[in-house]
Amino acid sequence: MPPAARPIVFVSDFGLGNEWVGICHSVLAGISPRSPIVDLTHLIRPLEVQSGGLLLADSMPYIAEDAVILGVVDPNVGKDREVAIGTNSGRYLVGPDNGLLSLAWKAAGGVATVVEITSPEVIRPPRAESFRAPDTLCPAAAHLAVGGALDQLGPALEPATLNALALPEPEISDGEIRGEVLDFNRFGNIQLNVREADLARAGLEDVPCLTIKAMAALAEARRGSTYAVFEAGEYGVIFDERGWMEIVRGNPASALEGLGLSPGHLVWITRSRVP
Amino acid sequence: MPPAARPIVFVSDFGLGNEWVGICHSVLAGISPRSPIVDLTHLIRPLEVQSGGLLLADSMPYIAEDAVILGVVDPNVGKDREVAIGTNSGRYLVGPDNGLLSLAWKAAGGVATVVEITSPEVIRPPRAESFRAPDTLCPAAAHLAVGGALDQLGPALEPATLNALALPEPEISDGEIRGEVLDFNRFGNIQLNVREADLARAGLEDVPCLTIKAMAALAEARRGSTYAVFEAGEYGVIFDERGWMEIVRGNPASALEGLGLSPGHLVWITRSRVP
Amino acid sequence: MPPAARPIVFVSDFGLGNEWVGICHSVLAGISPRSPIVDLTHLIRPLEVQSGGLLLADSMPYIAEDAVILGVVDPNVGKDREVAIGTNSGRYLVGPDNGLLSLAWKAAGGVATVVEITSPEVIRPPRAESFRAPDTLCPAAAHLAVGGALDQLGPALEPATLNALALPEPEISDGEIRGEVLDFNRFGNIQLNVREADLARAGLEDVPCLTIKAMAALAEARRGSTYAVFEAGEYGVIFDERGWMEIVRGNPASALEGLGLSPGHLVWITRSRVP
Repeated sequence: MPPAARPIVFVSDFGLGNEWVGICHSVLAGISPRSPIVDLTHLIRPLEVQSGGLLLADSMPYIAEDAVILGVVDPNVGKDREVAIGTNSGRYLVGPDNGLLSLAWKAAGGVATVVEITSPEVIRPPRAESFRAPDTLCPAAAHLAVGGALDQLGPALEPATLNALALPEPEISDGEIRGEVLDFNRFGNIQLNVREADLARAGLEDVPCLTIKAMAALAEARRGSTYAVFEAGEYGVIFDERGWMEIVRGNPASALEGLGLSPGHLVWITRSRVP
Repeated sequence: MPPAARPIVFVSDFGLGNEWVGICHSVLAGISPRSPIVDLTHLIRPLEVQSGGLLLADSMPYIAEDAVILGVVDPNVGKDREVAIGTNSGRYLVGPDNGLLSLAWKAAGGVATVVEITSPEVIRPPRAESFRAPDTLCPAAAHLAVGGALDQLGPALEPATLNALALPEPEISDGEIRGEVLDFNRFGNIQLNVREADLARAGLEDVPCLTIKAMAALAEARRGSTYAVFEAGEYGVIFDERGWMEIVRGNPASALEGLGLSPGHLVWITRSRVP
Repeated sequence: MPPAARPIVFVSDFGLGNEWVGICHSVLAGISPRSPIVDLTHLIRPLEVQSGGLLLADSMPYIAEDAVILGVVDPNVGKDREVAIGTNSGRYLVGPDNGLLSLAWKAAGGVATVVEITSPEVIRPPRAESFRAPDTLCPAAAHLAVGGALDQLGPALEPATLNALALPEPEISDGEIRGEVLDFNRFGNIQLNVREADLARAGLEDVPCLTIKAMAALAEARRGSTYAVFEAGEYGVIFDERGWMEIVRGNPASALEGLGLSPGHLVWITRSRVP
């Protein structure tokens, strides 16, 4: 009996409204019919490389060490190199060389080897430049899933030449954190680049209510453990299941709109003076 | 060759916009790579336990007798017991002990044995209380799918201690049914707790037009067999593919809005006096 | 070891908000647990047979030659014959005889043999006329996927009796193309029945800007290779990854609204006189 195929974990910004995800599945299953295919999500906001990269990295603890991870969020499709990366944890990463995979390879033990995907034995000329994945990235991922070697995909690259996202670090002083908006979701909840340990480093870990100052507005936000504890319109601070500080607001209000924030914007977090 | 793994049928209110469903698939496939995973739907309206429980129970005739059914709709996640149930039909049910599974186990022949999911050999401490499923319910379901024993998941519970949904029964008299709104869908169609046999019990089975009285409004609704037969704005009554009476309205009007109804509201159904 | 099962490729207008897709998966996996199931998409606009048929046909180059393709978009469910078609390429097609499969069988080498799906050994009486697929089409598709014979599904039909979509052909003269709207998407992009070769036949292949005349409005549209090159509100013409001419408009404007078009409407394409 042949060894089982590696699972393929697939994340993209393709959406579900057309045939793109299905066509990729069709190609993957054609080459590696025994691989479970896990759709992490295909609703990454279109072209948002950092959002996709963060979601992928934060999902890593739940992804098997023999998985082949296929990520496609590529605003410059056809211009970026396409790469396949062997990580020190055993997982493979396949996608464009635009930083999308960089947070994931850090979470997966770092890059062991990397190749550019060019081999005509594995891939084929894309039928459309705007939709290369089924002809290049999918065959490459499936090749690895059935046990094919990384170096059959194309020439080795120097890992240092890979593009990486620079995730902004919060600035922490005694009693204040200057954080940055990483992402938001459809409920208007705001994800900041702040971890629970950062609160402790600023001496704010036991503060029941925090002041969140943005350029355009200011909110007093109560600490809580879940969304449900906040009154309608009330601001709150929780740590989400991925470990990031989240600014939320009791339904149906939106923290994102209330504070006028977008990804990349700064916020200042201090002890609230409100009684 | 090892015996094939049991299929896993998965229903939740997780939505498709983030990585939650994908992470659960990743964990399930990691433990039981040979199980087909069937996503019944992940768009149960958030936290609507009865809606999820009804959909699951009504789907039972189409679900294999060797299936492991994983249901996650849990407004009190972290507070409810997590349980695994062996039914008399052979199907397993895994989920929170909040009633979500109760209509399903009735449709699957009743509870044979039930355990609380606690075993550290199978599950792990949840990485996040707000998202326990990948660390507790998913490993438990996959354990059963690969042929693991129910009693390895934790201590036996008394079936009578399980929480069950009390689905409201219609009140039927000669010429009148007092029903209750069970659910609605995005088209504004209203599902009532009324079966075709109830119409006959009230002597209304051959009535071509019914009066539907709600607290806030009243409609004359024509019997029909499909949505397409009703004029724009016209009210109609059909029996849906799950066997429930549905109040519909010709596109683009919404019966739900027109009658001012919500789940739990009462309606009175009688013979229409309109000519 | 038994031979691997054929992959099943599934496309429908069922949407993702209820249990329909899941129930079909449950039935398919119950009969053919080793078949990879590829969901091409389930968000075909409801009841839009031509839209589904085109998407399926255009996806054919990416679909394996041993695939069983299950298509369900059926405004007349319960009235149409249900058919299973063996194509000359080896792929099977299963669905209603309403034209949905006709563009696909042309793309798959034409019809070799076709049967009506009636056999009580394979299918069962539908539990609901409005949702026949899990009782008829799904068992038939899964029967073929596990290696069952086509002629076990029911009596042979004369291929010439199958319903086919008549895809409108553009009218081409020197310097002008009269095309027709095939479809549109949620961005308001308009797909026309015009291929890149048609532009050349009209002598318009090197024209940098085209005039698009509709009944209600007129636009000057610049040729481009991707969506991103057009300014906000600017009209553009690209060829999409499926090979069709698409009229687009720089975000956030909608070409569909701007030109007042719907599927079936005519447009006239000429050289732009705008400098």
